[in-house]
Amino acid sequence: MTVSPLAPAQFPDLPVIGGVTFAATAAGVKYQGRTDVMLAVLQAGTSVAGVFTRSTTRSAPVLDCQRKLGGDPNSIAAFLVNSGNSNAFTGSRGSGSVQAITQAVAAQTGAPEDRIFTASTGVIGEPLPHDRIIAKITELHENQSATEIESAARAIMTTDTFAKGATATVTVNGKAIKIAGIAKGSGMIAPDMATMLVYIFTDAQIGQADLQVLVSDLNARTFNCITVDSDTSTSDTLLMAATGTAGIDVTGSTEFADALHAIMLELAHQVVRDGEGATKFVAVKVTGAQDDSDAHKVALSIANSPLVKTAIAGEDANWGRVVMAVGKSGAVADRDRLSIRFGDITVAENGWRAPEYSEEETSAYMKNAELEIGVDLGIGDGQSTVWTCDLTHGYISINADYRS
Amino acid sequence: MTVSPLAPAQFPDLPVIGGVTFAATAAGVKYQGRTDVMLAVLQAGTSVAGVFTRSTTRSAPVLDCQRKLGGDPNSIAAFLVNSGNSNAFTGSRGSGSVQAITQAVAAQTGAPEDRIFTASTGVIGEPLPHDRIIAKITELHENQSATEIESAARAIMTTDTFAKGATATVTVNGKAIKIAGIAKGSGMIAPDMATMLVYIFTDAQIGQADLQVLVSDLNARTFNCITVDSDTSTSDTLLMAATGTAGIDVTGSTEFADALHAIMLELAHQVVRDGEGATKFVAVKVTGAQDDSDAHKVALSIANSPLVKTAIAGEDANWGRVVMAVGKSGAVADRDRLSIRFGDITVAENGWRAPEYSEEETSAYMKNAELEIGVDLGIGDGQSTVWTCDLTHGYISINADYRS
Repeated sequence: MTVSPLAPAQFPDLPVIGGVTFAATAAGVKYQGRTDVMLAVLQAGTSVAGVFTRSTTRSAPVLDCQRKLGGDPNSIAAFLVNSGNSNAFTGSRGSGSVQAITQAVAAQTGAPEDRIFTASTGVIGEPLPHDRIIAKITELHENQSATEIESAARAIMTTDTFAKGATATVTVNGKAIKIAGIAKGSGMIAPDMATMLVYIFTDAQIGQADLQVLVSDLNARTFNCITVDSDTSTSDTLLMAATGTAGIDVTGSTEFADALHAIMLELAHQVVRDGEGATKFVAVKVTGAQDDSDAHKVALSIANSPLVKTAIAGEDANWGRVVMAVGKSGAVADRDRLSIRFGDITVAENGWRAPEYSEEETSAYMKNAELEIGVDLGIGDGQSTVWTCDLTHGYISINADYRS
Repeated sequence: MTVSPLAPAQFPDLPVIGGVTFAATAAGVKYQGRTDVMLAVLQAGTSVAGVFTRSTTRSAPVLDCQRKLGGDPNSIAAFLVNSGNSNAFTGSRGSGSVQAITQAVAAQTGAPEDRIFTASTGVIGEPLPHDRIIAKITELHENQSATEIESAARAIMTTDTFAKGATATVTVNGKAIKIAGIAKGSGMIAPDMATMLVYIFTDAQIGQADLQVLVSDLNARTFNCITVDSDTSTSDTLLMAATGTAGIDVTGSTEFADALHAIMLELAHQVVRDGEGATKFVAVKVTGAQDDSDAHKVALSIANSPLVKTAIAGEDANWGRVVMAVGKSGAVADRDRLSIRFGDITVAENGWRAPEYSEEETSAYMKNAELEIGVDLGIGDGQSTVWTCDLTHGYISINADYRS
């Protein structure tokens, strides 16, 4: 598969995070000739927090993870993830598969079952061949290495065209702590969820409850603000592990929160950059709404509109479709106070095309691979930014022929 | 443009409706070499009812029509419609254009201004060259004919690949009355609105208030149950005129309501059949929901899902994506009570692939041009049916290059 034209130049150089080791292998769950299972082992005392899809048809591993969050952190923990099969809508067999894998990981790692968090991503509704995964647990345990996080990032890919990672080193009370995260996802991406699969690790020390509040809050401003196709996955999972090996308590640290925010945003943006068929990376910034919730509605309405997304694909400065998307959003809007800009070019204001509007200048701007659409509703102080990509022939080609 | 493969074999033979005359002409609003304006004149005493888009950025003609509904029916009325320009988001110039056209129509037809209903459909945000339309009003008035309804249907087309019409003759109290309707629309089609442009005429007699209640009710079950691309137009307008020339009062007649329902449904289906790029006509029938509103949410979530729509385009029996769309819909659902069928083939039940499921049989079914997806939530008695089409390369081609 061709790598997305919006991909970063390379996978970042992720640091070793004390207290975490990784391994990946090829279990042949569905794909041939590539890795498809990863195991991360976390030392005793690691805080684990997570956010998940709100889908009512969410997968067996998601239901299992949600039940396990908030358990006793004073023992070893593990993350086991496979690609190629989502183990979603697989009835009672689904939870049976989760349990079988969990028992095998517990036997090898010594982690109690309620500290083992699994995830599965891929086709929906097919039984998970969990025996193939279980057959590889010993190998995965024996090959654990502090430096294999990139292998883990590659093993969890499905229709992704590049592996996704981000890192930061942040100084808290004069000492350096590290954060590293990986993600996968490129289709079935829509807000009101956690995200696809995201795993973030830090050597900072922070209690599970505090970590959960921080992650949930940042999630609302990062992964819940991206959309590729308005479709919400049954498997979305974000797990964050704080091992504490740096010996620095980051509870309440704004430096730590800012660094984590930057990493989550970077991973979220990488998911959009790998949006199925994407050729444009688009930020939709809405201001002047009645409140933030209304601003988010408008931003999503624009970012999910097939007509706006196809216009962007065609490099057409079709701001009339932006007006349409504002109008259908359900948010409070007043046509005559609305203004719209593409980049720095004001294309419409006061319910009318801007006097200085130049079709040529705007069309030239639309040729950029990274675009910003700004909408000011002129009503209040509410604001929201959503990131999305265009809708192209590539999306149709990928999805009209994915399962068969 | 190639005619949609889902188009009816031919435009129906629409009957003359007493009290209504039509004419169409080429005013050169935007398109060259085709008609783009139509005028219908309705005799004094005609009841007029209508439903319109709920967009907050709706067009100047829509705002004007909404103001005029419910006026005194005891004078001549007229419908004036142009294609090629929607006169939406055109600021105060927009209402100025409506007024200029209205005055010109009033001068020719003798209808009072508050009985003249205009509509405009086409590009958003460009000033309407209303002088070109006004220059043709005399010609339109002089050429009025009871038999030119098909010409009217052709003049209001934009990206439509075929003209849309439907008719019925219904016997009420032993006497025959006639109904004929025309519509346009193929993109920017989504429920929670009236529709694109629809004009329905009958020689039945019914008061304006009764007609409005009937039309609004039937609209909720017809045009508000179709979606092509989840995008809601700024111009959607449905107007119905009852001239009363048949001398038969149909107030409260179930025969009349049923016939009108059938015509509205047929026109709504024709709009879907002309969905941009459509190759499949799909009915999504949801039953067993907590209430009708929840059923409608689920049906729309499926019908608007890009992943479901691309799977249909690829003739892929990907019911996992239907599960996904149920899960994200926001409706009450229980994975283990959910069943899904494609046509008569049960593909999933009790939270699991159906035991008798055959991939081959289902794949063969998906090759049909007309498909039915059935979802039973197994919770209550709520039900809803929504009609949609697939999402193909054709949609991308049409919309990545429409305005420029």
